[in-house]
Amino acid sequence: MSFTLHKKDGEARLGTLRTSHGDVPTPIFMPVGTVGSVKTMDSEDMLELDAKIILGNTYHLYLRPGLPIIDEAGDLHNFINWDRPILTDSGGYQVFSLAKLRKLKYDGVEFRSHIDGEKIFIGPKESMNIQKSLGSDIVMIFDECTPYPATYDQAKESLEITQRWGDECAKVELHPHQMLFGIVQGSTFQDLRIESARYLADMNLPGYAIGGLSVGEPEEEMLKTLDWVLPVLPEDKPRYLMGVGTPPQLVEAVARGVDMFDCVLPTRVARHGSAYTSSGQIQIKASKWRNDFGPIDDECDCKVCTGYSRAYVRHLLSTNEFTGMRLMTYHNLHFYLRLMERIRLAISEDRFEEFRIDFHARYQRGQG
Amino acid sequence: MSFTLHKKDGEARLGTLRTSHGDVPTPIFMPVGTVGSVKTMDSEDMLELDAKIILGNTYHLYLRPGLPIIDEAGDLHNFINWDRPILTDSGGYQVFSLAKLRKLKYDGVEFRSHIDGEKIFIGPKESMNIQKSLGSDIVMIFDECTPYPATYDQAKESLEITQRWGDECAKVELHPHQMLFGIVQGSTFQDLRIESARYLADMNLPGYAIGGLSVGEPEEEMLKTLDWVLPVLPEDKPRYLMGVGTPPQLVEAVARGVDMFDCVLPTRVARHGSAYTSSGQIQIKASKWRNDFGPIDDECDCKVCTGYSRAYVRHLLSTNEFTGMRLMTYHNLHFYLRLMERIRLAISEDRFEEFRIDFHARYQRGQG
Ligand SMILES: [Zn+2]
Ligand SMILES: [Zn+2]
Repeated sequence: MSFTLHKKDGEARLGTLRTSHGDVPTPIFMPVGTVGSVKTMDSEDMLELDAKIILGNTYHLYLRPGLPIIDEAGDLHNFINWDRPILTDSGGYQVFSLAKLRKLKYDGVEFRSHIDGEKIFIGPKESMNIQKSLGSDIVMIFDECTPYPATYDQAKESLEITQRWGDECAKVELHPHQMLFGIVQGSTFQDLRIESARYLADMNLPGYAIGGLSVGEPEEEMLKTLDWVLPVLPEDKPRYLMGVGTPPQLVEAVARGVDMFDCVLPTRVARHGSAYTSSGQIQIKASKWRNDFGPIDDECDCKVCTGYSRAYVRHLLSTNEFTGMRLMTYHNLHFYLRLMERIRLAISEDRFEEFRIDFHARYQRGQG
Repeated sequence: MSFTLHKKDGEARLGTLRTSHGDVPTPIFMPVGTVGSVKTMDSEDMLELDAKIILGNTYHLYLRPGLPIIDEAGDLHNFINWDRPILTDSGGYQVFSLAKLRKLKYDGVEFRSHIDGEKIFIGPKESMNIQKSLGSDIVMIFDECTPYPATYDQAKESLEITQRWGDECAKVELHPHQMLFGIVQGSTFQDLRIESARYLADMNLPGYAIGGLSVGEPEEEMLKTLDWVLPVLPEDKPRYLMGVGTPPQLVEAVARGVDMFDCVLPTRVARHGSAYTSSGQIQIKASKWRNDFGPIDDECDCKVCTGYSRAYVRHLLSTNEFTGMRLMTYHNLHFYLRLMERIRLAISEDRFEEFRIDFHARYQRGQG
């Protein structure tokens, strides 16, 4: 398992992440499979869409089905019928956003499950051991995702916790096939972000994530944070922007040197009728599509756009048919995955800047 | 469009229904696509499962998306992206079971939509014209599905209405590719059932359905009714048992000479965790499967059984993931469609009786 940076086009990077479950070309988008399935999709769908890597949520999987069952299955790959790479988050974000009655302790967090109220403790060691059991290819350190907005003192204190926990995580021996990624925190404060990035860079980890973004801050704060952090991170390691974002945000983050993304947007908004298209986001449930027999996106060659009409997908969503959510999800994931493919091609042909300008111009056509 | 009876093995029949959208080998099971999709499935799934024909519900499609949109799309095949044959019911059953404030009139039924309360009238002429617009390959006459239980007088009166409406339906000129099927009613009364079958046989329709069964009567009443009706129906026309049934019921109906079936059972119970297997029906949500890493049915070669475990499907159902319902639906439909395939093979090899005994013995193994 290793990362190779093939070339740069401006700050945009083309690379390959090698794992024991296969190679991941970067920049890459990772669909989110919260409890072990990308919602409405099965593994054959994800192969058909040629997803190279998916994400699983440690917190959710720890609660259900729980480790004993995954241990018995072998690992998460076996349990969910997915042979390609998996990244697992640390559980930290969900503990802070979903769990009830959480209590921050020196060594971790005590909380009650959002499902049955059971009392659970997860700290860096626990998170590492859970992710070890899951057998994911990329393991994330257990961090505290600093809420937004935060005062300087809050952000600083939160970062200290993240650093302490990060040190603990790095001490745990993982499986040989697993790569540990550190997470840069520090809220919207330049010195804290840079300190965090330097601290992690010194740890010489296999990869680095930028966390604590897409948590409510304005987009320009997010991009500014990337501009501070990315130059500090080592060139030869993959950079993963957690939980981001919209298609234009992906393009802008790639332009700044980000290699990896995950986001629930394409799958979540799909289930509510929102489609990403080459000319912007559209709401398929809008009445203007009721007798529109064109495809969701006339520049898309996915099976949904080649076989089904906006009118039909709208009808399925209006009648609450699962199939409607499925077709929307399939198209949106196709859009995200093909966007990354086009980005990789543009970088490889030294025309990323041209691609970037063209993408934004076209994407904004249909907006509003 | 025509029906060819190739051979009989006992009373079990092997045939081919030729339509302008392709051939349907019989005995056949037709998955139900209520509002234009088989729940949780898309057209590619149905092709992968090799469904030869699906059913659409006139009442539902008439309310949503409504005829203007289907007319603009061309027909139902175009609208839902399905090139193989479609059978549409007449809407009668749904009017009686779903609509609010229905009022039986001489020429049809006045009712209020179960969706928005809109006042609508459907009679034989309206049903024919709707099904003509839908462009289905098999069109059902507009009948009154006699409720169970019914007194002799109720059943007789209901049958008279069905016969009058059937006459009206037969007067409407359909598209050349469409076949009109009559529906035998008469509740559980031998003389009414036989009268109904004779009346329809005299009309020399392209096919005949047996309706008003699987509406709450004991299974033996259903089989007795088939024993009365089937000998009266012409040998050279297809016989369709509406809304039936469980796998053993399908086998028993084939043994009596039925050619076609539709039923929501495999798709509906799938969404509630119930799987059909070669050794009976099992509830995947049961806690005993929580760490069972075998397939849903170890004699099944569907993609679900070859790739996914009971434990995983159970986990997805427990966490209310759509993917769980999808995998269950896929397997159950595969089970029904392959059962019919095995039935056809058994008939073609003159060993249907052997198959029938063996099927029941195996199916009962795992029950209870
Ligand atoms: Zn598409
Ligand atoms: Zn199966």
